[in-house]
Amino acid sequence: MDIYKDSSKPVNERVNDLLSKMTIKEKIGQLNQKMLGWNAYKREQDNIILTQAFHKEVAFGDGLGAIYGLFRADGWNSHITMGISPKDSVRVANEIQQYVIEHTRLGIPVLLSEECPHGHEALEATTFPTNIGIGSSWNPDLYEQVCGVMAKEMRARGGHLGLISTLDIATDPRWGRTEECYGEDPYLASCFCESAVKGLQGTESDGLRNHDKVIAVVKHFCAQGATIGGHNGKSTNIGQRELHEIHLLGMQKAAKAGALGCMAAYNDIDGVPCHINKHLLTTILRESMGFEGFVMSDGLGVDRLLTITGDYEQSGAYALKAGVDLNLWNESFLVLESAIHSGHLTEKDLDVAVARILAVKFKLGLFEKPYMDEHLVDAVIGSEASKDMALSIAREVPVLLKNDHILPFDEHIKQIAVIGPNSHHVYNSLGDYTQWQEEGKVTTILEGIITHAPKDVSVKYAHGCSVRGMDKSEFDAAIQVAKNADVIVLVLGGSSTREANMTFEDNGALFMDAFTTEIDCGEAVDLADLSLGGVQQDLAIALKVLHKPLVTILIQGRPHAIPWFAQHSDAILCGWYPGEKGGEAIGEMLFGKVVPSGKLSISMPVSSAQLPVYYNRKDETPYVDLQAKPLYPFGYGLSYTRFVYQHFSLNHKSLSQHALEQGERFNLSFHIRNDGDYDAKEIAQLYIYDMESCITRRIKELRDFKKIHIPQNTSVQVTLSVGIEELSIYNYDMDFVLEPGQVKLMVGCNSDCMYHEEIVTIC
Amino acid sequence: MDIYKDSSKPVNERVNDLLSKMTIKEKIGQLNQKMLGWNAYKREQDNIILTQAFHKEVAFGDGLGAIYGLFRADGWNSHITMGISPKDSVRVANEIQQYVIEHTRLGIPVLLSEECPHGHEALEATTFPTNIGIGSSWNPDLYEQVCGVMAKEMRARGGHLGLISTLDIATDPRWGRTEECYGEDPYLASCFCESAVKGLQGTESDGLRNHDKVIAVVKHFCAQGATIGGHNGKSTNIGQRELHEIHLLGMQKAAKAGALGCMAAYNDIDGVPCHINKHLLTTILRESMGFEGFVMSDGLGVDRLLTITGDYEQSGAYALKAGVDLNLWNESFLVLESAIHSGHLTEKDLDVAVARILAVKFKLGLFEKPYMDEHLVDAVIGSEASKDMALSIAREVPVLLKNDHILPFDEHIKQIAVIGPNSHHVYNSLGDYTQWQEEGKVTTILEGIITHAPKDVSVKYAHGCSVRGMDKSEFDAAIQVAKNADVIVLVLGGSSTREANMTFEDNGALFMDAFTTEIDCGEAVDLADLSLGGVQQDLAIALKVLHKPLVTILIQGRPHAIPWFAQHSDAILCGWYPGEKGGEAIGEMLFGKVVPSGKLSISMPVSSAQLPVYYNRKDETPYVDLQAKPLYPFGYGLSYTRFVYQHFSLNHKSLSQHALEQGERFNLSFHIRNDGDYDAKEIAQLYIYDMESCITRRIKELRDFKKIHIPQNTSVQVTLSVGIEELSIYNYDMDFVLEPGQVKLMVGCNSDCMYHEEIVTIC
Repeated sequence: MDIYKDSSKPVNERVNDLLSKMTIKEKIGQLNQKMLGWNAYKREQDNIILTQAFHKEVAFGDGLGAIYGLFRADGWNSHITMGISPKDSVRVANEIQQYVIEHTRLGIPVLLSEECPHGHEALEATTFPTNIGIGSSWNPDLYEQVCGVMAKEMRARGGHLGLISTLDIATDPRWGRTEECYGEDPYLASCFCESAVKGLQGTESDGLRNHDKVIAVVKHFCAQGATIGGHNGKSTNIGQRELHEIHLLGMQKAAKAGALGCMAAYNDIDGVPCHINKHLLTTILRESMGFEGFVMSDGLGVDRLLTITGDYEQSGAYALKAGVDLNLWNESFLVLESAIHSGHLTEKDLDVAVARILAVKFKLGLFEKPYMDEHLVDAVIGSEASKDMALSIAREVPVLLKNDHILPFDEHIKQIAVIGPNSHHVYNSLGDYTQWQEEGKVTTILEGIITHAPKDVSVKYAHGCSVRGMDKSEFDAAIQVAKNADVIVLVLGGSSTREANMTFEDNGALFMDAFTTEIDCGEAVDLADLSLGGVQQDLAIALKVLHKPLVTILIQGRPHAIPWFAQHSDAILCGWYPGEKGGEAIGEMLFGKVVPSGKLSISMPVSSAQLPVYYNRKDETPYVDLQAKPLYPFGYGLSYTRFVYQHFSLNHKSLSQHALEQGERFNLSFHIRNDGDYDAKEIAQLYIYDMESCITRRIKELRDFKKIHIPQNTSVQVTLSVGIEELSIYNYDMDFVLEPGQVKLMVGCNSDCMYHEEIVTIC
Repeated sequence: MDIYKDSSKPVNERVNDLLSKMTIKEKIGQLNQKMLGWNAYKREQDNIILTQAFHKEVAFGDGLGAIYGLFRADGWNSHITMGISPKDSVRVANEIQQYVIEHTRLGIPVLLSEECPHGHEALEATTFPTNIGIGSSWNPDLYEQVCGVMAKEMRARGGHLGLISTLDIATDPRWGRTEECYGEDPYLASCFCESAVKGLQGTESDGLRNHDKVIAVVKHFCAQGATIGGHNGKSTNIGQRELHEIHLLGMQKAAKAGALGCMAAYNDIDGVPCHINKHLLTTILRESMGFEGFVMSDGLGVDRLLTITGDYEQSGAYALKAGVDLNLWNESFLVLESAIHSGHLTEKDLDVAVARILAVKFKLGLFEKPYMDEHLVDAVIGSEASKDMALSIAREVPVLLKNDHILPFDEHIKQIAVIGPNSHHVYNSLGDYTQWQEEGKVTTILEGIITHAPKDVSVKYAHGCSVRGMDKSEFDAAIQVAKNADVIVLVLGGSSTREANMTFEDNGALFMDAFTTEIDCGEAVDLADLSLGGVQQDLAIALKVLHKPLVTILIQGRPHAIPWFAQHSDAILCGWYPGEKGGEAIGEMLFGKVVPSGKLSISMPVSSAQLPVYYNRKDETPYVDLQAKPLYPFGYGLSYTRFVYQHFSLNHKSLSQHALEQGERFNLSFHIRNDGDYDAKEIAQLYIYDMESCITRRIKELRDFKKIHIPQNTSVQVTLSVGIEELSIYNYDMDFVLEPGQVKLMVGCNSDCMYHEEIVTIC
């Protein structure tokens, strides 16, 4: 038996054996992922059959590295397909696999790569909150389970590579992909990044062979959240220290957790596009972080280098040599053979990349079991367990920003007016990268309120206005609905809803010249003015005249600037894009069945004029006309109950560098007492300020946190701690070192509210 | 005779000889510039006498490197002094000098360092436009003469070191010191930087010995204009390529022009404070740029390192070893002797810095002629020649942004209403770092209009409102004044006026908690919302109701965001802070005696939400709710006449790298024809776009320009060109090289209006 066919052999031996048998053409085929998956099949009557285009794609490299988005079905590709139902999915996936295996010389299985930014982007799959909401949950453990569900649903269908935004740090909320970030803090985001990898790939060494896990392709590497002006995928001008302090930690933790895939980012870093940044993709990623997976191009990310390199051959060669292994839609990776002939590339360069692709195919067990069981899928996709998970996470996402004794509603509330563009809109609750949703699958906010309102409470609804349109003609109807209500629930915010009639760039991003008035967020939908769009605030002002209690619910993908609401609303609940069970969870919250426990993972600015306003700045200087502080700070969020922090104790006032290197830590212990009337969860946060250092330091940096459930009238002991990893910094020479000196440890309930400080010494 | 006393010996021999005779104490004394100059003297009856504090300062180091701001007299120090009149100045300067020489062992003369950002900041000295207006003149030759006047006025008084902002690039107009920048473009700014050095120091090798020149201390090094959020003097996070492409060119040209002084900047660059940045202050500044002068600390810039270093000794040692030579107010430079004893510093480190200070004293001829002639000063300060120069430059500064057939006023205009907070306010026309002004010295806009209005035209004035106050009680009076007018001239904008009752930081910057409603610009006065302050726009709206032609004049230190005015004003003239003759020049312009010829050296944004909006970005992507383009682009400005660009010709379609290295250039020649009714000046601009490069390039980069006077009905040939310096880039490896490939050359009248393009090849 060929070594590569022997599953008892180590992966590297199997890779080397197979590689030694391959032609250049076959090698290039293994790096290929040019085709959009929905072009691989077509419907004929009730059948789904594979296309000639797909056959040609396989023939091109006598094999195929991967195929992207076979199951994808959303606004972008709806002109071609309405997607593939779960029951058909496995069959189509198996047919694809079988065709590749049986019509190529070596029969190497193909990888199916799929989007799963907040659920698998495929029909009937479960849709979770987008990442900015996930970040607000401060619950990476629960998120690991969420990602486990995503993996299960994707693998059951036949998918192998799960593309997921986990690396981007939101430093400018104007950026439309802010919704795909866990937040503005590298430490918090890195915890979720680690959870995503563990959830998708599992933590067992051979977990991927179990057919409920997928490979995590974490994206984007790197610093896409730092683009100038928040312009999507464009330039950053940051330096190496900013890069290391803010944008690398997620990938570092992902690599450590064993992530096997990583996607290069569109942007450049200080002039060098990530796709040709060898320092980034090789020195940092592999040599320093120890990443052992493959790097995928972002869609057309290599072809975009054309203006730099002048031709496809050089673009492909540059990218491959820098460290990009797997194509995504680029012409540049189809001409690698001529790039070799032209001397831009050697076959050895090629081998390095091919080996990485083959390795993941072996690790997935595809050579042993390329096909999925067609009978299991229906029990997995959108199962009750999946829906429960969607509800569990949705309960942790919303952040209560203000509450003047109105929430939860008491027995005096008998009539509720639910008003606003995001009250009863399925897609506006779900965010970008969302597949078509089946009727009844998603609970809107209105439906959630109706469901959870006591029987004797009447709920009336008016649309009021659209997200960004200027039409006020529905105001009167809204006022009519509100007039007799005991409370007005205004459901406002933004939208990342892609409609089939929109125009898209060739990478699927929305084409900006074709914007409608109903979208203000998502990929390539960057927003200058962070105020709520259109006439939403005017609607609120018109309703405020009625002198009714006003509860504002924000359904949005980025923090909008809402100073008017901070002043005039009686309560504000920021639900982000809460996913298919978001309406359910928010309904529960309004009536006290669930207590809000989310905290902001991103600062909410007073206005765009204040940007940037992330908490981990190096100064806190006000403008002559505006405060330095945001409207609501990072880490902020209220509860229905009241927590008291007390009895602080520290294990060491000082530790030697040696002790810290040996694993000793500064532990700050304290008690949190729930003094209120609800069992609830609190998120305790530990920040540091490095008081002595050879370079300028940030005023606060989150270094530990815990989310703890505390029953009422109960006290729980919590310990937060820092060790060598959390205390080391990139020094003057950019070495990551532990410097002697004093460090302030601060514990509080948000980044602007510290209950206790300790100064410790590293000696 | 001691070598150092022999003026026939080369400077370095004299320095070494003197250095060899000095004690550590004396050396430290030569690096000292701790005292604020106004504490060195006091008034007793009609006399000005030197203080005990000054005697102690001299005794501390048995000599004194320099003394700062002896003549300074403004809001900051007005509680101590009202300044020293010109006639007293030379006497006081000579007394200071004499005391130092006669009361120290070696008798080394002292340097008097003085602010001259837009004129010497001393009583009766001529006050020119601030730099943002200078940049709009696009006339570096004239500016060289302006700086010549500044030097003459300062040296006549006894000053030696002229502190002048020339290096900062305005990338964020929220920054209050935007007024001190020549603009947003490194090439344009570097031309003015060169002019400043030549104007202040002269171009003769022994020019400094002639007593009408001073040493240029160019500031701030470096990248202060890139601070995050425009927060003054705080952190930047830019990378090395951004630093080199945008922020270093000015210093490079200054060094080449022979600048002998440079001031370190407060900010850090990607975490490393400039004051301890050895790579910046030594490797780049001296080794790469060939700078041979001394580096001065910014005021307290070394003491600010305390949070980083932990103590004064280390702060001083770090800074000195990094390349800071001369103190400014820091404690840290007083403890250098103990820093040597503690081992943080060697005497040799000290010698390097001391040698640089001694060298400039020799170069200034101070050992030969330490005293100034007391009888010459009155003929120099504020002379007719100086005033003429102030008027000449003021005529080139204002930028005509809009003109719907209203300017210049024709014979139908018989009644003019001049309204607004900046119509008739002396200090609001002058900017930050301005000394007390004598009665009648400054022409306000109102006065200029009255002066230049034909005899049969009546001019009425109303204040209307303040700069940032919310009071509308003066609106009625303004409407009364406007009611019968043929045209309303609204003079709006900002203010950097420091009042004696304001509170200041210990470095003279305004203390932000103490802001009034009348200041929105200047050092430490950073503005979040770029809209015009207070009720200025409301005033305009109230007046617009009268349906009169509306001419808006902006007197300001930064670009405000004025979309309403762009739509509703009939004409807009941006005068910046035009200096003491600004009112005169603007008066002339309104009546057609002078034709506007300024063009924007900084983009005018639509709003703060659009930032950054500088023209030399790498992409031009719109937001979903806002255009990518600014309201008025870089390089933009109208004339009363009409220019036609024609007959383009290019000398080479391609040039070899070798030919370019040998000095050959691409010359693009063309004719500009003045087709209108006025003799006028036009500014032709050449931009490049590098079409093939290993890194991402900016969409446009200014590389040459000419301001040409063209009589009406005349055509003038213009040649703009690029050579190796203008075509080289910092490549992937950060080497400054000429890369083969195509480059687009574009010629136009502003950065958004190109008349001609040529693609040339470097082969």
